[in-house]
Formats: sequence, structure tokens, C-alpha cells
Amino acid sequence: MNINGQQFHTIWADKSHPEIIKVIDQQKLPWEFSIQSLKTFNDAFIAIKEMTVRGAPLIGVTASFGIYLGLKSFSGEEPLVEFISGLCTTMKTARPTAINLAFAVDRMKLALENANDIEVARKIAFKEAEELKQFEIECSSKIGDHGLVLIEEISQKKNGETVNILTHCNAGWLACIDWGTALAPIYKAHKKGIPVHVWVDETRPRNQGSKLTAYELQQEGVPHTVIADNTGGHLMQHQMVDIVLVGSDRTTQTGDVCNKIGTYLKALAAKDNNIPFYVALPSSSFDLTISEGLTEIQIEERGGDEVKFIEGKKGKVQIIPDGSPVANYGFDVTPARLITGLITEKGICEANREEIGKMYKRDKVFFCKK
Amino acid sequence: MNINGQQFHTIWADKSHPEIIKVIDQQKLPWEFSIQSLKTFNDAFIAIKEMTVRGAPLIGVTASFGIYLGLKSFSGEEPLVEFISGLCTTMKTARPTAINLAFAVDRMKLALENANDIEVARKIAFKEAEELKQFEIECSSKIGDHGLVLIEEISQKKNGETVNILTHCNAGWLACIDWGTALAPIYKAHKKGIPVHVWVDETRPRNQGSKLTAYELQQEGVPHTVIADNTGGHLMQHQMVDIVLVGSDRTTQTGDVCNKIGTYLKALAAKDNNIPFYVALPSSSFDLTISEGLTEIQIEERGGDEVKFIEGKKGKVQIIPDGSPVANYGFDVTPARLITGLITEKGICEANREEIGKMYKRDKVFFCKK
Repeated sequence: MNINGQQFHTIWADKSHPEIIKVIDQQKLPWEFSIQSLKTFNDAFIAIKEMTVRGAPLIGVTASFGIYLGLKSFSGEEPLVEFISGLCTTMKTARPTAINLAFAVDRMKLALENANDIEVARKIAFKEAEELKQFEIECSSKIGDHGLVLIEEISQKKNGETVNILTHCNAGWLACIDWGTALAPIYKAHKKGIPVHVWVDETRPRNQGSKLTAYELQQEGVPHTVIADNTGGHLMQHQMVDIVLVGSDRTTQTGDVCNKIGTYLKALAAKDNNIPFYVALPSSSFDLTISEGLTEIQIEERGGDEVKFIEGKKGKVQIIPDGSPVANYGFDVTPARLITGLITEKGICEANREEIGKMYKRDKVFFCKK
Repeated sequence: MNINGQQFHTIWADKSHPEIIKVIDQQKLPWEFSIQSLKTFNDAFIAIKEMTVRGAPLIGVTASFGIYLGLKSFSGEEPLVEFISGLCTTMKTARPTAINLAFAVDRMKLALENANDIEVARKIAFKEAEELKQFEIECSSKIGDHGLVLIEEISQKKNGETVNILTHCNAGWLACIDWGTALAPIYKAHKKGIPVHVWVDETRPRNQGSKLTAYELQQEGVPHTVIADNTGGHLMQHQMVDIVLVGSDRTTQTGDVCNKIGTYLKALAAKDNNIPFYVALPSSSFDLTISEGLTEIQIEERGGDEVKFIEGKKGKVQIIPDGSPVANYGFDVTPARLITGLITEKGICEANREEIGKMYKRDKVFFCKK
């Protein structure tokens, strides 16, 4: 998508030096557009852990390239298979919640299973990472096409009046490679000339909504308004929201959706006001090994300073008094019963075991295994 | 209550110069404890409008003292009754949502109805404002006593384990004169030795939770943890909240509760997880002239800069990118069906017309009239 009129992906191999992987530094947005070079496994690991890159699909692709980078430091002192296995085990610990990390790492491990030569392994790893990247781009684009239909239907019902969409956190192209998940249908609608307006939850504590989603939408010229996270319920009570679209970090086989903290509250408000609540996600965000989101998904607890301090245009300020403890849970789980539907690259389905199963029954998509 | 070990009210007439009204400047808390002098009607009007004082009961008492201050500038050019009426009409426009403002102003107008001499009027006005202040202190203390019973019951059920209470915004003594509304039962429980812990919603965009509630609780030594507003649903899903206690800016005769934006979302989560959700309010926060909160209560829209900028310990930073519009709704309405009960100075009742009516049927409490 566009940044200052120029097309970008969130991650790419440097054209002249493909052993260097470039990413957009999302910690610096929207105040500064900066590209970071990942040269080692550790660079990629830290980029994920410290959230230079974030968003479930992008975490996965960065992990794949990270394993490719890791192969550079193979010294031959241990069997290649063990070395690869070590890289994979470590990479999975970078962040706990987004299943795409495990998905990508397992996919890499499988692809490298029979590589007994380091040069072959490096070629396979690069190819596999590029393929995953392409897969995620295609998924996002298809999610956009399927979700577009929902927006078109609302637009028709409203006789062409602006469709108001509420979104939480950033599930745009910055969370993916291109297009995004929740924002993909919005971009497709906007490009098609359907009038849309997006309510952007600022998404405390890290403000990925106001910092990344607002930035993305601005760059693409999509009308939007940033609101405090407390506001969505009021808007829904007053028919100011036509549809809620969010992403997912992990979705169970039963359709429970783990996503950025606060998603559950918006799903409750949507249900209470009969507003459709859709979750957009690629196959790589499903965890079909679990069925009970609330008890089986590990919720990341992050440092309290993310709540206590806030990074603004000109530096960081403390916003909680000294001596008051803080807690910082990164995600919550929205039970399937609150979800109108899941928008995947394969189409739209209801959030339940049967429908999800049907959608993926005869499918060759790779799912991560425990 | 305590600030640095010294007892304070939020508003008081200066002992040596009772024509000067003193208030704690709540815009500067928690970073600086500063007392502001209100010398004129306009000082009081601006203090309410700009939120030097805030919180429904305190807004009411400040408005009363403001009318007292306004009488100083009576020149005799117009009939006294018209002058008083003018002050009352203007004062009511300072902020639109909290009914306590209208309640206090109407009460002053009624008390001054037969005063045909300016000196008599000034004495009556001062006495009436002081009486309203005392009334609010007594209401808060009684709300504390009634709410304490709920906390004690939970404590007994948990065999003395810590009772976890979630609160939104600031409905503590800083929103009132002393004790508070939602926080009054917590202070009473803490003073009685019942182990309590408070989850403090930071309450964007003005952060009255992290700035005022956390500060109050710290000063009184009550254990607490500040959280982003997005977090409460997750905590409730995981049985980490035993009871939700909030205040109210206006409550209808049917029990719909208008309170700080985001309250509705927490009420939905409490309902979804079978957690008791109580609203604590004095009689002065009831608006018995209306029955439908969602359509009949005017929701204040405030300037976008409150969302776009944040005031921290060392200055203000911009947290939304240039060029992204923002919206700032101050309140929302929680429908009565989501509320377990109302804690008033007269006791605890269910949030419905019949029970509220019973509680106030033979009562002489003054209610504001349209």
C-alpha cells in the first residue's frame, strides 16, 4: 500500500543484498517513517519481541525470514537438523499469543526437514519465507474481496449513504504484508468508490489504532475519526456504526477469537445493538488444535511502562502517578457466540466448529501442530 | 479525606475571607497539589466549564457558591429577582450533562425567591450553598455505609480474601466534597480492615481514573492497580473482579444511568460474566423528569484536543497524527437492565421506576424540575 505515494510492503528482502531483510519500523510510526535492516536471527527475534514489527501475519513472515537469517550463522559444529530445530524453538518464544508465529516456524521446519546441506537449506528457507509472504498477501487480498461484499450490501441498504465501520487496534496492511485483514475490505470498498468512514479506536495502551490505523487510512485517503476506546458503545447505541471489523491473533476451531485487549467489549456492544461484528483473518491465524479460547490461549502480559508512559510526537510522558501499580494484558478472547462471522481468504463463515470445519475440510492449507 | 496526611474538602469558604471560595485545582492533579481561589461568578463558571472542578456533586456545590459569589456584583440597576434569575440561567450552561448543576441552581433560586434585599440574599445564598455542601457530605457518607454492606458480604463469601472492585473514571471524594460516591464504600471497607483491591480504569481521554482515582487511593493507602480502559472485560472473564462500582452524572426515574463514556461497556461485561454492577449516587444526581436515558440526556461533546493531546507529569504530548480527525463524547448511558442496583444515601434499590419511586415516595428531598 501507499506511504507518501510510494508503494510498500511491510517486509522485503533487499534487492541488491537479499541476505538483508528490510522492515518498516512500526515503533516510530506515525511520527517518523524509518526502515530497519534485519541481518541476523537475533535482529528478527528482537524486532518481533520489541514490536518493531507486529500484527499476527507480519509476525509470522518475519519469523520465517528470521530463520533464514539464522542459517547464516551455522558453524557446522552440530548437526544441521538440530541447529534448525534450535532456531525454531527459540523463535517461537518471541511472543506468546499470535499463532502465526508458530504457524510460520512449523512451516519453515517442515520445509527444511530434508535439507542436509547448509547452502540448500538457505535456498529453501528463503524460498519458503517468500512463499509465505506471497500467501499472506493473497490471503489479505481475498479477505478484502469477500469483506467488500458485506460493505456493498450495507451501502445498498443505506441507498449509498456513507457506511460507518468501527475497528479496533491495527489490522491493516501494517499488521500484514499488504492490504491487511480487517482493513482490506475497507480499502477495496474505498477504491471502488463506495463511501466509507472508519471509527478508529485509539487502542490503549500502545495506541496502534491512533498511531498505525489512522496513519494507514490517511495515506490511502480513507475518511476516518479517531476515538478513545471508551466511545464505541455510545456510537453503537446511537446507530453511528454499521459494522464492526477487527482482526485476530488466534482463532480456535470453535470460533473463539483472541485479539487485542478491548475487542471483547466492542463485541458485547455490537451484540447488544444488533450490529454485525466480523473478524477478518487468514488461515495462518487459526489454531485448530484448541477449542476453548478463554482457557487455552496464553494472554501476553507486557511491561507496565507501556501503560504508565505514552510516546507522543515529541517524546514520552508519564501519565500515571508515581507509586500506583499498573497491569498490562495484551489480548482478550471474544467468545464465538458474539461473532457474526469470520472473513477468511476462502470466504465468510459462521464462527462455529461445524462451519469452520466445512470451510477447511478438503483443504491443503498448512495448519500448525502442537 | 487525606492529602499528604492533611484533611481536605474539595471546596470551602476561606475562614478569614468567606467571600472567597477555595477549590482544589483538579486539572493539575496528580502532578501538583494546588488550591484555586474563586472570587467571582465567572471564576466559578469557568472552574466548572474548564474542569478545575468536576464530578457531578462537586459541580453542583460549586455552582451554588458561584451564585453566592455572583450576588457580589449586583448593582441595583435591575430588579434583584431578575438578576438572580440571570445568574441561574447562565450557570446552568456551564456543562450540559450532570444534573447536579441544574439541581443546585434550582435549589438556590428557590431559596432566594423571597429575598428582596441584596444583603439578605447574600446571607441566604451562603447558607444554602453551605447546606448543600453538608447535604452532599452526608449523602456520600451514607452511600459509603450502604455500599460497605455489599463489600462485606463478598468478603465473607470469599472467606476474607481480598475483594476486587473495578471502577471507572473518578467517583471518589474529589468528584464530591468528601468520601465520594463509588469510592465511599471502598474507603469505609478499607477503614474497617476489609482487604480490598481496586482496578482503576485510566478513563481516556481525560484520564480521571489514573490521575484522580489512583491519586486518591494512594493518599488513603488503598491497594489499587491502574489499567487501560480496554482491560476490564478480560479481568471479568477471568473472575478477577468481584463487583463493579461506578458513579453517575444523571440517573433517570427508570434507572438508566448516564456516566463517563465507557461505563456502558463495563456494564455489558459485568452482565455477561454475572458480576454485580452497582451505581452509587446521591439524590442530587437523579433526574426524575425523564424516563428514557438514551434519547433524553444531552451528551456533552468536548474539544478534540482532549483526545489528540495528553497531559503528563512533564508536559503535554500529541498522540494522534496531524490530519486525523477526532471525536470526543464525554458520557454514555447504561440502560437500567444492565444495573444490579443503585446505592443512594437512602439505601440500595433496584434500577427501575417502581423501586426508585418507592425509595423517594414520601421524601422531602428536593428534586430539580424542568
